[in-house]
Amino acid sequence: MDTNSVGLVKEQQFTFASAEDPMKLESGHTLGPIDIVYETYGEPNEDKSNAILILHALSGDAHVAGYHHPNDKRTGWWDVMVGPGKGFDTSKYWVICSNIIGGCKGTTGPGSINPQTGKHYCQDFPIITVGDMVEAQKKLMDHLGISKLYSLAGGSMGGFQVIEWILRFPEMTRSAICIASCARLSAQSLAFNAVGRKAITMDPGWNDGCYYGTPGPIQGLAIARMIGHITYLSDLSLDSRFGRKLQSADRFSYDFTTEFAIESYLQYQGQRFTERFDANSYLYLTKAMDYFDIARSYGSLDKAFAAVKAKCLFMSYNSDWLFTSEQSREIVQALKRNKKDVSFIEINSPYGHDAFLTEYEQPKRIIVPFLDSVGKKKI
Amino acid sequence: MDTNSVGLVKEQQFTFASAEDPMKLESGHTLGPIDIVYETYGEPNEDKSNAILILHALSGDAHVAGYHHPNDKRTGWWDVMVGPGKGFDTSKYWVICSNIIGGCKGTTGPGSINPQTGKHYCQDFPIITVGDMVEAQKKLMDHLGISKLYSLAGGSMGGFQVIEWILRFPEMTRSAICIASCARLSAQSLAFNAVGRKAITMDPGWNDGCYYGTPGPIQGLAIARMIGHITYLSDLSLDSRFGRKLQSADRFSYDFTTEFAIESYLQYQGQRFTERFDANSYLYLTKAMDYFDIARSYGSLDKAFAAVKAKCLFMSYNSDWLFTSEQSREIVQALKRNKKDVSFIEINSPYGHDAFLTEYEQPKRIIVPFLDSVGKKKI
Repeated sequence: MDTNSVGLVKEQQFTFASAEDPMKLESGHTLGPIDIVYETYGEPNEDKSNAILILHALSGDAHVAGYHHPNDKRTGWWDVMVGPGKGFDTSKYWVICSNIIGGCKGTTGPGSINPQTGKHYCQDFPIITVGDMVEAQKKLMDHLGISKLYSLAGGSMGGFQVIEWILRFPEMTRSAICIASCARLSAQSLAFNAVGRKAITMDPGWNDGCYYGTPGPIQGLAIARMIGHITYLSDLSLDSRFGRKLQSADRFSYDFTTEFAIESYLQYQGQRFTERFDANSYLYLTKAMDYFDIARSYGSLDKAFAAVKAKCLFMSYNSDWLFTSEQSREIVQALKRNKKDVSFIEINSPYGHDAFLTEYEQPKRIIVPFLDSVGKKKI
Repeated sequence: MDTNSVGLVKEQQFTFASAEDPMKLESGHTLGPIDIVYETYGEPNEDKSNAILILHALSGDAHVAGYHHPNDKRTGWWDVMVGPGKGFDTSKYWVICSNIIGGCKGTTGPGSINPQTGKHYCQDFPIITVGDMVEAQKKLMDHLGISKLYSLAGGSMGGFQVIEWILRFPEMTRSAICIASCARLSAQSLAFNAVGRKAITMDPGWNDGCYYGTPGPIQGLAIARMIGHITYLSDLSLDSRFGRKLQSADRFSYDFTTEFAIESYLQYQGQRFTERFDANSYLYLTKAMDYFDIARSYGSLDKAFAAVKAKCLFMSYNSDWLFTSEQSREIVQALKRNKKDVSFIEINSPYGHDAFLTEYEQPKRIIVPFLDSVGKKKI
């Protein structure tokens, strides 16, 4: 274990709302009770003014850094950025991350048991939005006694939550870091999500969403993940890593076996994803992404950002073609027109959208002084 | 019917090879007999020196222009470019197009009856390559008494065939027009093809390829087409045409119905494709695309193009992210290093890869003088 690791961490759980007093969702539907699974790293200071909330992306979870068990082979999903001396320095900050509602990593989602029926929610689970995820996180902040967040950070769909946070709770957010994100999905991104969902629901294993206790729509989910995975990587990184290399031969096999290394890699990624992710959550969370549209919700981007109080940092990656630098710039310009305190940095990286998970040296050099500067600013 | 239409045309058929004397394929396997379906437009001149062979792309066929029946609603796939006074002027040139082997529009493919078994080939059909398609077209040229082609033209996978033609039969090709194509698929394109094939073969309707007489893997094929379709269009054209428009409502429905216009469009395209295309052909033809790799076949691009005699024109579209301008330039540079007669034009168009099918004004302005110049060049 490296000396900058947060080491062993434990999942915690918090429950709010109930069948009688449920949470009201953006759709008009209700949900309750709601379990929220979360983890914390570092320690709160006396007045809990050093809390940083990390928001995870589509396939992430509350386990940001460190290990659950001493013999875990893999760390949390953003271990490169969260730990003592790292970009989010847990010797200074109290870092918190919770699994989003609708997910499948402990927080209430379509695979949870509906206490009113004693069965899995399946497709009876209500549609949730990014706003709903954030409202649930707010309940957790209240529970933890945090009245003001030192900062918020998230990439991709995590960035959507960052944006909802600074809009919904301006008084609670001193600063915010939004990475490789956007104010709404483009038509192309809507299209990729739609095809992924179609692959899941056409799989006979889907069974209208009631597949718990069976293998479920694992082939459809694998295809959805394969499509997603292509969009997470740049064409340049695919070419340099795989190119047209064959997986295990020098010559073409002239048949339909998995032959090119890129095919084999994608199939592996697809198959592995089915072992750790629930297809219904994939449906609900991609739909939440589709619905996310700040300009639509508030009338325009300029109107949306009028009430923001947080000092903001936006970062994008030049090879990201899923959530482009242009899309980050669009938000930054709207914040600037509102005369908000906002910085924007486009980072050069060949790794496409996935860079937000894997790059850490450049992000650390940007994020550390940004977080320092927040402390110097009068509240 | 517009005055520049070729009007009513008839499909024709030519058969070569046999079970006893089959065509030897690049894979080492054999195929025969082989039916080739083709169409011609305009008239041959006395020595048949005015023939232009059009090569179609993945989902195309021999029906390039005009109508099969007076009440047809749709013309052939490149009617905008082929007709009297059009880019390929049928009052001057004798234009020919044949359906490729492995296809499903009359030429022998996996859905054809294997005369040795009396049943559909299904997956017993041998893997075919772009080189094999071109060798079969050469037999048709021999049959038609064409000793030298005035020109060849094709976009996308049609461009692959153009390239194979000028390499395999340099003495037969006076000129060649290659549009929105490349010398080999990138890792990203291999990836999209692989996911499309996976969607087909995971569909229980696929039944290992033996589905004739049943609906077949229509959902998987629709998904493959939807993925393909996204790659054929630019993000800009998707945003301007569909953006985030809802199909038939003003407000979000907060359910999993087809809601955004882009979803509806893609599903329509996917579904329509299943009515006109055979899933096995989709598997065989995308695999042929994957295998196409001139540098691999000849040792390098420079070696590949050493023997070329044709005057060449390469065109690409600036918004095409499937087969990029950069990929066309790579070929053009190899031809230039070989001191070949080659021109390259990148056309501005917002329509992405699909521009090769829909754009006609700019291509006409480029192609007409190019074809004129071929006639002025000493043979």
